[in-house]
Amino acid sequence: MQLTVDLRSDTVTKPTPGMLEAMWSAKVGDDVFGEDETIIELEQKTAAIFGMEAGLFCPSGTMTNQIAIKCFTQPLDELIADQTAHVYRYEGGGIAFNSGVSTRLLNGYRGIITAEMIEPEINAENIHFPHTSLVVLENTVNKGGGSCYTLADIAPIAELCRAKGLKLHLDGARIFNALTHTGDKAIDYGKYFNGISVCLSKGLGTPVGSVLLADVATIKFARRIRKVLGGGWRQAGFLAAAGIYALDHHVERLKIDHAHAAILGEELSKLSWVSNVVPVETNIVLFDTVEPAAAILAKLAIHGIKASDTDKHRIRFVTHLDVHPEQVEHVIKVLKSF
Amino acid sequence: MQLTVDLRSDTVTKPTPGMLEAMWSAKVGDDVFGEDETIIELEQKTAAIFGMEAGLFCPSGTMTNQIAIKCFTQPLDELIADQTAHVYRYEGGGIAFNSGVSTRLLNGYRGIITAEMIEPEINAENIHFPHTSLVVLENTVNKGGGSCYTLADIAPIAELCRAKGLKLHLDGARIFNALTHTGDKAIDYGKYFNGISVCLSKGLGTPVGSVLLADVATIKFARRIRKVLGGGWRQAGFLAAAGIYALDHHVERLKIDHAHAAILGEELSKLSWVSNVVPVETNIVLFDTVEPAAAILAKLAIHGIKASDTDKHRIRFVTHLDVHPEQVEHVIKVLKSF
Amino acid sequence: MQLTVDLRSDTVTKPTPGMLEAMWSAKVGDDVFGEDETIIELEQKTAAIFGMEAGLFCPSGTMTNQIAIKCFTQPLDELIADQTAHVYRYEGGGIAFNSGVSTRLLNGYRGIITAEMIEPEINAENIHFPHTSLVVLENTVNKGGGSCYTLADIAPIAELCRAKGLKLHLDGARIFNALTHTGDKAIDYGKYFNGISVCLSKGLGTPVGSVLLADVATIKFARRIRKVLGGGWRQAGFLAAAGIYALDHHVERLKIDHAHAAILGEELSKLSWVSNVVPVETNIVLFDTVEPAAAILAKLAIHGIKASDTDKHRIRFVTHLDVHPEQVEHVIKVLKSF
Amino acid sequence: MQLTVDLRSDTVTKPTPGMLEAMWSAKVGDDVFGEDETIIELEQKTAAIFGMEAGLFCPSGTMTNQIAIKCFTQPLDELIADQTAHVYRYEGGGIAFNSGVSTRLLNGYRGIITAEMIEPEINAENIHFPHTSLVVLENTVNKGGGSCYTLADIAPIAELCRAKGLKLHLDGARIFNALTHTGDKAIDYGKYFNGISVCLSKGLGTPVGSVLLADVATIKFARRIRKVLGGGWRQAGFLAAAGIYALDHHVERLKIDHAHAAILGEELSKLSWVSNVVPVETNIVLFDTVEPAAAILAKLAIHGIKASDTDKHRIRFVTHLDVHPEQVEHVIKVLKSF
Repeated sequence: MQLTVDLRSDTVTKPTPGMLEAMWSAKVGDDVFGEDETIIELEQKTAAIFGMEAGLFCPSGTMTNQIAIKCFTQPLDELIADQTAHVYRYEGGGIAFNSGVSTRLLNGYRGIITAEMIEPEINAENIHFPHTSLVVLENTVNKGGGSCYTLADIAPIAELCRAKGLKLHLDGARIFNALTHTGDKAIDYGKYFNGISVCLSKGLGTPVGSVLLADVATIKFARRIRKVLGGGWRQAGFLAAAGIYALDHHVERLKIDHAHAAILGEELSKLSWVSNVVPVETNIVLFDTVEPAAAILAKLAIHGIKASDTDKHRIRFVTHLDVHPEQVEHVIKVLKSF
Repeated sequence: MQLTVDLRSDTVTKPTPGMLEAMWSAKVGDDVFGEDETIIELEQKTAAIFGMEAGLFCPSGTMTNQIAIKCFTQPLDELIADQTAHVYRYEGGGIAFNSGVSTRLLNGYRGIITAEMIEPEINAENIHFPHTSLVVLENTVNKGGGSCYTLADIAPIAELCRAKGLKLHLDGARIFNALTHTGDKAIDYGKYFNGISVCLSKGLGTPVGSVLLADVATIKFARRIRKVLGGGWRQAGFLAAAGIYALDHHVERLKIDHAHAAILGEELSKLSWVSNVVPVETNIVLFDTVEPAAAILAKLAIHGIKASDTDKHRIRFVTHLDVHPEQVEHVIKVLKSF
Repeated sequence: MQLTVDLRSDTVTKPTPGMLEAMWSAKVGDDVFGEDETIIELEQKTAAIFGMEAGLFCPSGTMTNQIAIKCFTQPLDELIADQTAHVYRYEGGGIAFNSGVSTRLLNGYRGIITAEMIEPEINAENIHFPHTSLVVLENTVNKGGGSCYTLADIAPIAELCRAKGLKLHLDGARIFNALTHTGDKAIDYGKYFNGISVCLSKGLGTPVGSVLLADVATIKFARRIRKVLGGGWRQAGFLAAAGIYALDHHVERLKIDHAHAAILGEELSKLSWVSNVVPVETNIVLFDTVEPAAAILAKLAIHGIKASDTDKHRIRFVTHLDVHPEQVEHVIKVLKSF
Repeated sequence: MQLTVDLRSDTVTKPTPGMLEAMWSAKVGDDVFGEDETIIELEQKTAAIFGMEAGLFCPSGTMTNQIAIKCFTQPLDELIADQTAHVYRYEGGGIAFNSGVSTRLLNGYRGIITAEMIEPEINAENIHFPHTSLVVLENTVNKGGGSCYTLADIAPIAELCRAKGLKLHLDGARIFNALTHTGDKAIDYGKYFNGISVCLSKGLGTPVGSVLLADVATIKFARRIRKVLGGGWRQAGFLAAAGIYALDHHVERLKIDHAHAAILGEELSKLSWVSNVVPVETNIVLFDTVEPAAAILAKLAIHGIKASDTDKHRIRFVTHLDVHPEQVEHVIKVLKSF
């Protein structure tokens, strides 16, 4: 039987037996009433890891990001983000739709922006301009090919935000990948951010969910927003249990995904039909092809390999816990055969 | 050990062993990519039951209702609903927040409104008035004490809506309770409604979820709205499996909940400290107390019975699949002892 | 030549020669830069009259009301108003559209609500409910037939709002008519309201404009909202000059309009084809007709009289400075001839 | 007495005697009832000039732009504009606030964008992306220093929009300046745009107002939006009369403003303390200074000259009908003296 490999996204993973076991033995309750003990445990555990006060478990990273943006802005405000930011590009226009907020875009390097870039884009007090109130960073940057901020990059941004009265939110869809790469400590993140969105269903491999971290007052208001958006779920402790399991068992192993990505990047860079490979930092490999990307995807599909194109000549591979060494070998063999 | 009985809501139920078994063995996939076969099965099955074209599985009934309202209105529009409607009272102000839509309220009998009440409240074409574009019914009516519309009640409303170019949405949080009571057929609902929200986590007893039903084009747009609200989840097939199981196994048994509610209502009506019992139709019992409701709730709590007050002298009991005959007996015994 | 009389609204008036003269000689500047001295004078003068800190001149009463609602609420909030309130009924659904705010409606007597009615409708802190943050009164009540609040009516409402942390806004579209009727002093209004909308283009007879009054910080934010709504105009001092003139010359004369309305009401109450006349307090006369209102309006039109129907059997007359004694006589003669 | 010259904006002009005369002899009526004949005349006249079906007179260009954006989009949509666009930068964040719409920004040359730039930014059909539905052009481009599109530039953009189902709106704040420079005919604009915003209070010199042009159905809906934003004014015919006068008398003379700007640009380019002058096309002169702009502005102010800085080392001069030849000479003399 042909091997199949799904490199489209780290969202496609299925629970491991251990995780499934944890899910079915979860103690659940009605979370709208605040009575699901597994959810409470997940929220507290995640908050503790990042040095934040409180957490809120939501059905998606889009929801945790969108709630954070609503918590940290008012209509008539503007947020600052890199032009590739997931919150701006891939959340359906939610910044404007959910919060009535404008977006000022920066042109970062692989999605990484700096305090120097941000400062001149903070609007002066003037009725013609929206009021700048929030900066959003993404770590790792999906569209930047898994590029990472270090805490040393983040500190001056946090300082600027504090000085200017702006809030700072982290879209941590792949924050554990960033921590794995940079060696920074999760606990130190709490000093810098007003909000952190921690996704459990990407590299960590749970079926569903993301945790929003912030201070107690913000999480209280966030709970209200989650309700109005329709994210107030009931016995979701089954899903929260997967999150707890993942935090305990799936963080350490992310270095395997990174090693796989690195090998793929290295092999790709040797191929004549590949014109460029974006340096691999974490679990995402972006590379440019001489032929149209669609043609390459079609050829990969014949060999049971799924991937995605992010531009006419650019392909993205994402490694994750359902990509095993023999599959990486299979992909390399196929790539070399083109 | 003291018996505990939770009559606060039918949302508090926990999966039965059979349902858990179904959840365990579910085949899942990434639903954002449309690849979770269990979710697809649930959506199609629910649509078929109600004679609708397509379905969308969401984390809550609030989300299915709010998405439907967004699908069927534009900003500057107005919807018509009873003044007790869940969409207006208990969804956090979502009609205005999510859709920018005004609400015209009717004063129905136990939340049941009629075509005669609706027609004069449809705004004339005039720039001073929002444009009336939607009517929302709730069946059963939560705040009406589980009161039911029959299809005979609904038909003239649907006809009016069609004649006036309005859409008609059903908040079917407890639609199976209504069907159980009225004897109407689910399949006939599709003729009357543009949208139906079917909740799985109330009487049906699943942990999480609600299905929005509509035509194919509406569901396509609904999927986009679900995404921007943050309801785009991944391997939620575990939860969908519970829904399929419930549709197969938990509909028929709703008559037991109704019988329990009827007995409770009957016994309550004999008590001197109860000033009024709203006639029981389904699984909700509303009754008024001479003493403040809070005092009664405190006394019930001593005996392991949880309930909720909906007004200063009004208490609500809701029966569900985690309320068994011996618990009903216990409640009656305690009530009589006051 | 036939006399023509326009009783449809007090918005239809045209400037008097004295007002036109004042407009001609106005000193103007660019108001977006805060340099129109006539506008500044009007804003300060109106604020001083009502004992408020600051003012903002806007193109309409709808704009001053909608800006006030935005200033005093956040999305996810709810405001309380009578079910006939202009802000809810006649401003195009702006509460939801501009502010994302829900409306809780009371059933006042001729649109007049009380603290007793308001208090139970203030939502408890609960994620299911929008957060109640504002009460809006209208004085006089247009849809109530020009009915008036006295300051004695208002004081307990203001006290309740203060106690509960709610803001209180006055839609003063016809506030000078109310003052004329009640004998209350404008200067005392500032003690009770967070915002007051004072319309200049109704009974006061200017061509365009309304002034929003509030404290300095609110008006600063209001200026920002006015800009985003498109109300930032330039040399509007020509219109402001009409407002200053009206405040100096057209307030005293409102009692003439009231006298005209009173005579019309009295005569109407004697007619067999009139089934009911709402007691006349100010410059609005509401009466019910045995025949359909449309038929009566058609007959009036033949005699050069314009009026409007507010329901199938209800007609509204509004008196104003372009309705002179001989026109009132003409109307009475025509009414008697039916 | 010292000459004073206001070069901050062409919005600061005051009506000429002829315009004032036209204003005071205007026939007015209640425009909310559609009865102001001068407004109707202005709307029809402006529409005819640009080959459009209908017009709507509003208090500002921000309002006409914001209404157009609301007419041509739905929440969840995205519009495409240059990153310097007035609708994005100077309208208070209204795209997100009023319409819930995202903005995709292009990096045009002096604000001029092309079909080639637009095409790749039209989002594919995908629930992650907002739906691209509108392109907005600005002619002349304020922030580009009065740079112009020719109809030859516009035609391929209009063609692309038609092919892709997008609407095309023109922010014509200074459209007559563009026509003066390019020699294009206003009547030909109607073929290309779905909406045109024509400002009367900039180069044309009226005190207040802008006209939105579109087809009849769009203007009908626009009237509804104008109402909800608070732009439904009453006897605004006084202001409309100024607009009619300006269209008859102030278009031809714009070439004088352009000549003044050209002379200023030429003289500035000779000065050692000026590091760069953006090529002058119309009535705006942008130039960069070695010293901080604020220091230059302070020196100009001593000589009665007002101007504005658009960046730390950039100053903007705008010529208009209140800038006469002797004032231009004065400015040049002062500039040379630094």
